[in-house]
Amino acid sequence: MGISAHVICIGNEIMLGHINNTNAQYASKNLASIGIRTSEHLSIQDDPDTIISSIRNSLRAADIVILSGGLGPTVDDITLDCIGKSLERKLLYNNKVAEHIKKHFKKRGLVMPRNNLRQALVPKGAIPILNNIGSAPGLLIPVHGKILVALPGVPFELYEMFKKNVLPYLKKRFHPDKIIKSRVIKITGLPESKVNEKLEDILKLSGNVEMGIYPHPEEITVKITVTDKNKNKVNAIIKKIEKKIRLRLKDYIFGYDDESLEEVVGRLLTKKKKTLSVAESCTGGLLSDRITGVSGSSNYFQMAAITYSNASKNKFLAIPVEIINKHGAVSGQVASLMAKNIRLLAKTDIGIGISGIAGPRGGTKKKPIGLVYISMSAKKKTICRKFLFLGQRDIIKRKASQAALNLLRKELCSALS
Amino acid sequence: MGISAHVICIGNEIMLGHINNTNAQYASKNLASIGIRTSEHLSIQDDPDTIISSIRNSLRAADIVILSGGLGPTVDDITLDCIGKSLERKLLYNNKVAEHIKKHFKKRGLVMPRNNLRQALVPKGAIPILNNIGSAPGLLIPVHGKILVALPGVPFELYEMFKKNVLPYLKKRFHPDKIIKSRVIKITGLPESKVNEKLEDILKLSGNVEMGIYPHPEEITVKITVTDKNKNKVNAIIKKIEKKIRLRLKDYIFGYDDESLEEVVGRLLTKKKKTLSVAESCTGGLLSDRITGVSGSSNYFQMAAITYSNASKNKFLAIPVEIINKHGAVSGQVASLMAKNIRLLAKTDIGIGISGIAGPRGGTKKKPIGLVYISMSAKKKTICRKFLFLGQRDIIKRKASQAALNLLRKELCSALS
Repeated sequence: MGISAHVICIGNEIMLGHINNTNAQYASKNLASIGIRTSEHLSIQDDPDTIISSIRNSLRAADIVILSGGLGPTVDDITLDCIGKSLERKLLYNNKVAEHIKKHFKKRGLVMPRNNLRQALVPKGAIPILNNIGSAPGLLIPVHGKILVALPGVPFELYEMFKKNVLPYLKKRFHPDKIIKSRVIKITGLPESKVNEKLEDILKLSGNVEMGIYPHPEEITVKITVTDKNKNKVNAIIKKIEKKIRLRLKDYIFGYDDESLEEVVGRLLTKKKKTLSVAESCTGGLLSDRITGVSGSSNYFQMAAITYSNASKNKFLAIPVEIINKHGAVSGQVASLMAKNIRLLAKTDIGIGISGIAGPRGGTKKKPIGLVYISMSAKKKTICRKFLFLGQRDIIKRKASQAALNLLRKELCSALS
Repeated sequence: MGISAHVICIGNEIMLGHINNTNAQYASKNLASIGIRTSEHLSIQDDPDTIISSIRNSLRAADIVILSGGLGPTVDDITLDCIGKSLERKLLYNNKVAEHIKKHFKKRGLVMPRNNLRQALVPKGAIPILNNIGSAPGLLIPVHGKILVALPGVPFELYEMFKKNVLPYLKKRFHPDKIIKSRVIKITGLPESKVNEKLEDILKLSGNVEMGIYPHPEEITVKITVTDKNKNKVNAIIKKIEKKIRLRLKDYIFGYDDESLEEVVGRLLTKKKKTLSVAESCTGGLLSDRITGVSGSSNYFQMAAITYSNASKNKFLAIPVEIINKHGAVSGQVASLMAKNIRLLAKTDIGIGISGIAGPRGGTKKKPIGLVYISMSAKKKTICRKFLFLGQRDIIKRKASQAALNLLRKELCSALS
C-alpha cells in the first residue's frame, strides 16, 4: 500500500470557480517525487463543521493530510480554529512566529494590523514553518503517528514551504519505501490519433507501470510512471519503455520532462554556434517571445521584425510590392523572402519567416483561416512549408510558433550549414 | 440553502499531479452562473470501491453530482460500471449512441476499435448526451429527485456538453430561485497591500455579499459576488459596491470581467483612430504578442522591431552608437529613442519603446535585474518612465508588457494627440 496522502483545499473562491486550484496538483506532484501517493483531493467551503469533519475523516483514511487556505488574518480565516477543534488541542501564542510576523511588516515599512497576531497562534505540539513571502506561518502537526500539514492558500507561499520544509520533513518522518518515478516524453508534429496508434500496446501497460497521454494544441506528452521499491528496477523499466517509444516516434520526439521546445532549440543553436533572426506576421511576436523566454537567448537571438502590415513588410524587409500583390502577403514566396531578408539584414546564420491567417477574420475560400507558411533560410538552404492549423486565433498562433521552432530544431539536428 | 452540487473528478493522472484539474473550476463557475452553488470538489483514483462510495456519499449530500473522467473505451475506464453499481441499475446498449460513435470514426476515416462500443452502454433511465468532439457520450441520470451527471474527462469535450446540454437541463429541472452574480474589477499599477488598504472595509463585507481579492504578478482582481432571490437587488448591490471601489481606485482600474488590458487598449486605439508601433528589447516580443492577440488588431498595429542586440538597435532603429555607449542600452535615453524612431519609421501615431534587464543574468549594482525603461512617443509628446520590477525573467517580462500597455491606456484616456 505505501504511505498515502489527502489534500484538502479550503475556500469559497474555489467553490465559486473563481480560481483554479493549483495547490492540490503541486502537492501531489511533489509528494509523488518522494514516493508518496495522493489518494484524494478535496475542496470545501469556509464552513467550520465541514472543515472539522473533513480533517477528521482524512486523518482516519490517510497518513498525511495537507490543508491549504484559510490561514489569513481576517475573521473569514477559520482553518486554525478548526484544526484546534478537530484535534481537540489548544491554540498557543508562539513568540517566535509573532516576532517573524512583526518583522515581515517592518521590513516592508508597513504598520502591522492587530489582526495579524492571530496568525501567531499555533496548535499544541505543532511545528511552525516561518513564511518568507507572506505573513501566515505553515504548520507541521504530528497526530498519533500521522501528520497534518497546514499551509497558506497563496500558491507561491505554499510552493516555497512545501519544497523547503514539508517534503524534507515528510521524507525523514516516513522513509517512504517506494519510488514513484515519472518520465515525460514530448512529441510534436504528429496528431494524437497517430501517436495513439503507434504506441497502442505500450499505452496499455499496467501493473507497476502507469502510462498517460496528454494532448495539448501544440504538442503531445506521454508520461511513464513506475512505482517500485527498487530504484534500479524503476530506472530499468523506464529506460526500456522510453527506448521502445523512441524507436517508434523517432524525431517527432523533441524533448523530455520539463524541457520546452524553445529551450531545446536554444541548446542546439548554442552548440552549433548559430545566430538567429525572425520575421513574424500572423504570430505577432509570439515566436520571439518564446525564444527570448529562454535565459541566455541574447547569445544567439539578434532581432525580430514583426511586420504586421503589408507596408511594413515592404519597408523593413524590402519585400517588393509586386510580389505581395501577385502572391498575396500569405504565400510561400513572401514567407521565404521574409526569412531570407531578415537573415541578411540582421546578419545572422539563420532567418525564420512566418506569414499566415490567424483569424477569426481575414479567411477566404482559397486562403482559409489557419493557413500559415513558415520558411527557414540559411546560407546554403532555404525551405518553406505550408500548414493548415485548426483552432481559434490564440491556438493558431501557438501551433504556428511551435511548427517554426520544430522546423528549426530538425534542421539544426541534421547538418545545417 | 438553495440547490447544491458536488463535482467528482476521477483519474490517477490527477492524483499523481500530472494534470491540472480545470474541469471542477469550469463546472462550479458555470453552475454559479445559473444560481447553483458547489459545496465540494472531490478528486479520486481509478478505484471501483472509492468511486462507488463517493457517488453514493455525494448523492446523499448534494442535489446535483457532476462526475468527470473514466468514460473512455479502455479497461481502465470504469466509471460507467461504477455508476451502474452505485445506483444498482443495469447498463443497457443504446443504439442511438452506438450509431453516433460509429459515425464519429467514419467521419475521420478511422476504423472503430471494437472496444469503443462499450461507450454505448447507458445506465437504465439515463439520458445520453452525444459527443461532437470525441467518442464518449455524457449522461444525465435522474436519481430520486436528484441528478447525477457523467461527463468525459477531456476538458474541451466536457466544456461543450456542459454549456450545451447540462446547464439548460439543470436550469429547467431545478428552477434555481437564487441568483449568484459576480463582477470582476481589474486593477493595475498599484501593489496589493495598497489595494487592500484602500478597500479594507469593502473587502470585509459579508452576508449575501462575498468579496475576494486575487493578486497576479501584473494585475489584481477584486471580485464582488452577490447571492439573492431578487435580480434587481443583486444588480443594485453590485452597482453600489462597484461605484465605491471606482471612487477609491480611480484610473488604477483598467477593466471589468473578462476584459484584458490589451483589449481595453485596442478599443481605445480604435475609438481614437490611432495607429501603433512598438520597439521591444527585454520583453522580447511579448508586448507585440499581447497586442496582436486581440482580433482586429491589424487595424491599429503596424509593426514591431524586437531589437535584442545593440547592433540591431543601431541598425534598425537608427539609435546612435554613441548614445548607447554613453548611457547604456538600458536607459531612458535609449528607450525614448526606440519609441520615437519606431513611430517615425513605421509612420504611426504612437510608438512604444522598452529597454530593460529581464535577468537572471546581466544585472549590475547600478542597473539591477528588473530595471526597465518604458517610453511612449506621440507627435506632440514623449514620456519615459523608469520601473524596477521584482521576480523571475518571465514575471519581469509580463510586468513590463503590462506597464507599457497601462502607460498607453492612461495616455489614450487623457487627451493624447
